[in-house]
Amino acid sequence: MRDESCIFCKIIAGVIPASKVYEDAHTIAFLDIAPFEKGHLLVLPKYHAPTLPDLPPEDLHRTIEVVQKLGRHLIKTLPCDGFNVLQNNGACATQTVPHVHFHLVPRHNSTPICWIPSSYPNMDEMAAYQRLLTYSE
Amino acid sequence: MRDESCIFCKIIAGVIPASKVYEDAHTIAFLDIAPFEKGHLLVLPKYHAPTLPDLPPEDLHRTIEVVQKLGRHLIKTLPCDGFNVLQNNGACATQTVPHVHFHLVPRHNSTPICWIPSSYPNMDEMAAYQRLLTYSE
Repeated sequence: MRDESCIFCKIIAGVIPASKVYEDAHTIAFLDIAPFEKGHLLVLPKYHAPTLPDLPPEDLHRTIEVVQKLGRHLIKTLPCDGFNVLQNNGACATQTVPHVHFHLVPRHNSTPICWIPSSYPNMDEMAAYQRLLTYSE
Repeated sequence: MRDESCIFCKIIAGVIPASKVYEDAHTIAFLDIAPFEKGHLLVLPKYHAPTLPDLPPEDLHRTIEVVQKLGRHLIKTLPCDGFNVLQNNGACATQTVPHVHFHLVPRHNSTPICWIPSSYPNMDEMAAYQRLLTYSE
């Protein structure tokens, strides 16, 4: 199920580029372009469901499995000391793209927690994070 | 699997009280005593896993299913316009109890988003929220 007007569906279809780090038949993950912390990922089902309540059980299971795997991967590869998982539903909850997505935010013992969107200083650094975090099984 | 020193395992065992709104064989949900918003729930597996990477797949699936169900329930029953799901791993990510738990935070179009822990003004009001949000299938 796809929504032609959805920016995440366009990324899934390859029409809009993204710094992809993982993809399988049902899910995709890429770097958030406005990260709370470098290495901040978005993990989403390919199925277009606007919010969590709309997601079918199989896609729910698959997506949270990928969140878990990529959380382990961040800790090992980035590396980081922990991570936050944040999933927003509705504009009132700061959901900006109405296609279910999980934020996966690496955290470090040395760095105060920050929920303010930032950016990568340049495309080279973003590409370096993409290479570092690219994951396959 | 249970950790005798874990406050959430003690709640699951009934040794420490909590404002429970849902329970099944594998998961439990109760009001957070320091809510970001009234009706803020914690949803957790009974299996003692310190962080998300430690959680077995079946418990992962069951817990996120309950998060989804209770998210729908909050919207319908509270009611609210949306909700945030937040799951913290590690002290650096503001995890305070090392037993995997999902924060489920109701949000309202009329209310600016707030991530500062608050409290219920009195036990009667907390009990009213518990009654309102108690969920069974």
